[in-house]
Amino acid sequence: MSKSSEAVAACRRQIEAQLDKVRSLNASEAPIDAVSSEVAALQTLSAQLGELSLSKKGGQKGKITLKTPKGTRDWEPLSMSLRKHVFSTIERVFSTHGAVTIDTPVFELKEILAGKYGEDSKLIYDLQDQGGELCSLRYDLTVPFARFVAMNPTEYGNIKRYHIAKVYRRDQPAMTKGRFREFYQCDFDIAGTYDAMVPDAECLCVLVETLDALDIGAFTIKLNHRKLLDAIFAVCGVPDDKIRTISSAVDKLDKSPWDEVKHEMVAEKGLPADVADRIGTYVLQRGSRELIAKLREDAALMQNNKAVEGLADMELLFQYLDVYGVVDRVSFDLSLARGLDYYTGVIYEAITALSAPPTKEGAPAQRKTKDNGELDESTVGVGSIAAGGRYDHLVGMFCGAKRPDAVPCVGVSIGVERVFSILLQRLQEAQARGERTSVRQKEVDVYVMSMGDGLLLERMQVCKMLWDAGIKAEFLYKKKPKLQQQFAVVDKEQIPLAVLLAPGEWANGTVRVKQQLGKDEAGDDKGTEVPLTELATFVQSKLSPSS
Amino acid sequence: MSKSSEAVAACRRQIEAQLDKVRSLNASEAPIDAVSSEVAALQTLSAQLGELSLSKKGGQKGKITLKTPKGTRDWEPLSMSLRKHVFSTIERVFSTHGAVTIDTPVFELKEILAGKYGEDSKLIYDLQDQGGELCSLRYDLTVPFARFVAMNPTEYGNIKRYHIAKVYRRDQPAMTKGRFREFYQCDFDIAGTYDAMVPDAECLCVLVETLDALDIGAFTIKLNHRKLLDAIFAVCGVPDDKIRTISSAVDKLDKSPWDEVKHEMVAEKGLPADVADRIGTYVLQRGSRELIAKLREDAALMQNNKAVEGLADMELLFQYLDVYGVVDRVSFDLSLARGLDYYTGVIYEAITALSAPPTKEGAPAQRKTKDNGELDESTVGVGSIAAGGRYDHLVGMFCGAKRPDAVPCVGVSIGVERVFSILLQRLQEAQARGERTSVRQKEVDVYVMSMGDGLLLERMQVCKMLWDAGIKAEFLYKKKPKLQQQFAVVDKEQIPLAVLLAPGEWANGTVRVKQQLGKDEAGDDKGTEVPLTELATFVQSKLSPSS
Repeated sequence: MSKSSEAVAACRRQIEAQLDKVRSLNASEAPIDAVSSEVAALQTLSAQLGELSLSKKGGQKGKITLKTPKGTRDWEPLSMSLRKHVFSTIERVFSTHGAVTIDTPVFELKEILAGKYGEDSKLIYDLQDQGGELCSLRYDLTVPFARFVAMNPTEYGNIKRYHIAKVYRRDQPAMTKGRFREFYQCDFDIAGTYDAMVPDAECLCVLVETLDALDIGAFTIKLNHRKLLDAIFAVCGVPDDKIRTISSAVDKLDKSPWDEVKHEMVAEKGLPADVADRIGTYVLQRGSRELIAKLREDAALMQNNKAVEGLADMELLFQYLDVYGVVDRVSFDLSLARGLDYYTGVIYEAITALSAPPTKEGAPAQRKTKDNGELDESTVGVGSIAAGGRYDHLVGMFCGAKRPDAVPCVGVSIGVERVFSILLQRLQEAQARGERTSVRQKEVDVYVMSMGDGLLLERMQVCKMLWDAGIKAEFLYKKKPKLQQQFAVVDKEQIPLAVLLAPGEWANGTVRVKQQLGKDEAGDDKGTEVPLTELATFVQSKLSPSS
Repeated sequence: MSKSSEAVAACRRQIEAQLDKVRSLNASEAPIDAVSSEVAALQTLSAQLGELSLSKKGGQKGKITLKTPKGTRDWEPLSMSLRKHVFSTIERVFSTHGAVTIDTPVFELKEILAGKYGEDSKLIYDLQDQGGELCSLRYDLTVPFARFVAMNPTEYGNIKRYHIAKVYRRDQPAMTKGRFREFYQCDFDIAGTYDAMVPDAECLCVLVETLDALDIGAFTIKLNHRKLLDAIFAVCGVPDDKIRTISSAVDKLDKSPWDEVKHEMVAEKGLPADVADRIGTYVLQRGSRELIAKLREDAALMQNNKAVEGLADMELLFQYLDVYGVVDRVSFDLSLARGLDYYTGVIYEAITALSAPPTKEGAPAQRKTKDNGELDESTVGVGSIAAGGRYDHLVGMFCGAKRPDAVPCVGVSIGVERVFSILLQRLQEAQARGERTSVRQKEVDVYVMSMGDGLLLERMQVCKMLWDAGIKAEFLYKKKPKLQQQFAVVDKEQIPLAVLLAPGEWANGTVRVKQQLGKDEAGDDKGTEVPLTELATFVQSKLSPSS
């Protein structure tokens, strides 16, 4: 028996012993902690067995699969430049509104996330139990924010904060549409007790300003109110325990026609057909401020307190949106329901033309799954590009039963990956047309070159002089580089200025500065001879936009 | 039996059945994949049992522990402002050198990280096996970078990139010293085949420029070469298979005196005492360029090819560092060894006065563990604040056996959490002395206030006007706020300008702008009356540094 076979056999024996241990603990109804820590030990053994068996196979190098995990991607330099542009635009708007930023860990204690996401809890990534606390990767930024506020109620019970960070969901990815398992969220939230709808209106104002600043093209913000929606369901005769599931069905009206949604309510969720029909008379309505007046004429609806409260909120909200000049950017849409459980007031969602699935012969394509179980991305839209709403009880869930609305909150989350996929496509199209774009992969301004004899130490000296002046500069890391090879870099990287070192000029204390872009400028063919002592100033003047 | 007790019993029965299944697979030597997927199923059952038992306990709300996982922390607004300042300083230096940035996922396939970290592999966080690929949280940014380069050799086989992102280590934390389980790394690396030591010298130049720009006070960069060190060990008589472990012992010379290190080599690692003594004659030497000449006089050492190569590299490196004007910032220190396996050439580490443990009666305090097993942080230094070196074979490990040095690399990693803990302490001390610091928690420039009668819509209108002009402005989210309450915010947040709305002036189309800071300015007691149409321009002129 070979050494590695022996090791495998030994490991299998250890597994067997460990199985016995778990069995006896389980049979004797030992405390759960004891059982689960022994199961964890078993898992470790199983992992060891896996590694032994890999090394037994010969341990050949180069057999590793070179890929990122499913649903994740690398961000190469051009994408990163665009991402930085997108984030700084968003941060500028958020901080103009006085928001501060916080950060929380990528993983939270598992119990913090438990019971917050309804059916979607199955999409949470757990960390392996390696001894110590049980943790999960964050699913969104809202629950960690609520946990943060609940932990620091005195200092941060009133806070306007933004948070731009990655979140994790074990969902079916659609990579080309900006749907990943690891993705960024950009959240802006206002926590604290204030007069009705004032922070809510500002969130919508921030949303409009952000999407305008990102220049993603036309968009609409759908607007609704959870209290109003719940009142409609109650008035139509939906039993209390079915409200959330019927609400989910209604939320599909952006992707599916009414007939299908009704079928789901009646056939799958057991709602009487006449109740579904009554729901239909409400949720197919949309409009603007005038819809408030229309609903107020509905005597049955106005018997319901929640409807009265919801409509009062909407009335105020429209008044404030009018002052902010953004009323024409929103649509009061009774079909908007939003999936998450924790919303308690106004809800909203921004969509663009790309939000819907591509249409075939006029009708939206049904989302399809390919033979291998993967999504067919050509049948998927990018979905909403931003969403949010009021959630008055989430912080309270962390504060104990006595304080359910300890810190009311309202916020908006920008679906930045979807925004990004729209902008990247546009950038790549512009580059394919040969246009010079403001977002570049690399931002070097000066390339320091040798015209002969290497001059390595001299090139280093010139670069250091430029770096110290804050000028972005590079040189080729060769002792004796060819002139052609150096110019090839300048062309490929679109570097605007070349500084040329020649032995004769160097001896006189001068170098030559040559403008590479806009070569047709008169008299710039051979560049300008500049004393070394004046180089940084000269280069800065050439690079400043006014020159 | 209650409903929940029944559920627990049922779950225990399922676990028993699953144990049988694993046992029979294991006994029949079934394929590892089959065993491990059934062990994963067992883990899921064990987790279910845990949850059932929690809900059995009554599932009281408010019983959740409000904390972040061990070794992690929240970043509150002031810390975030400082962090943004630190990152933008570092990014400015890195991009001045022409570096682009990339990003990789927070988790990698487990096999990508396997075999890269030696003993420290036990500190890697694994994700739970929830079906699909086995993944681990990244331990550093270097291995994911090497994986990225190996995946994209044509496009990124030559790349100067930086990466600022979080990494994860299940280590004993020392929170006040900037040692966390989740922490940021700021890496700058140059990949590609170039002339010797040119990129290496630039990494050291970047390190000096970065630490200078961060203004962390005096620092020293220790410098050594793996080839030289390996040659020294060989010449002293260390067997090949003990070189890495003896190297680790030598690396402790910054914390422990030679006697202790020698004891570890001889008593714990079985090295003959005379071999250890010979090592001592080398590794206790440090100096600058002159040490190269001194070592070249050592005939025994110069018989070793690696020593000759290492010293040639050091000679070139000192020449280049001289051109960059940073020779006086480095110390050629033969005791520097660095823990990681993958270094192949020059290695370096930056330290400050705070790097060493606090001293007691002149001697460094021994690192202590408290009764509860936690580190006693008062006995711990912040450690090195930056480190790096050349690693020529790491990309090759992903490219198969034929190309061990496919893409040679050199880089430096800034220990930004340690830098941060130094800067935060300084900032807090300055604030405690009442100094106005450039890093503020919140950056609002204008507070829009009502002098009477609420004027909510009017305040909204003025704010929107300022936001649209890019001016950071806020107002109190109350319909009828008290004047005192509004001024309290201005004082607390140190907001420089107040815009006051009064019913009379508003009717005339004017508002009053009052400078809050520097109140002693003559004539500014009542502020300046400004037409609404000129407000944004007026505010901008007040805020611009020249006014």
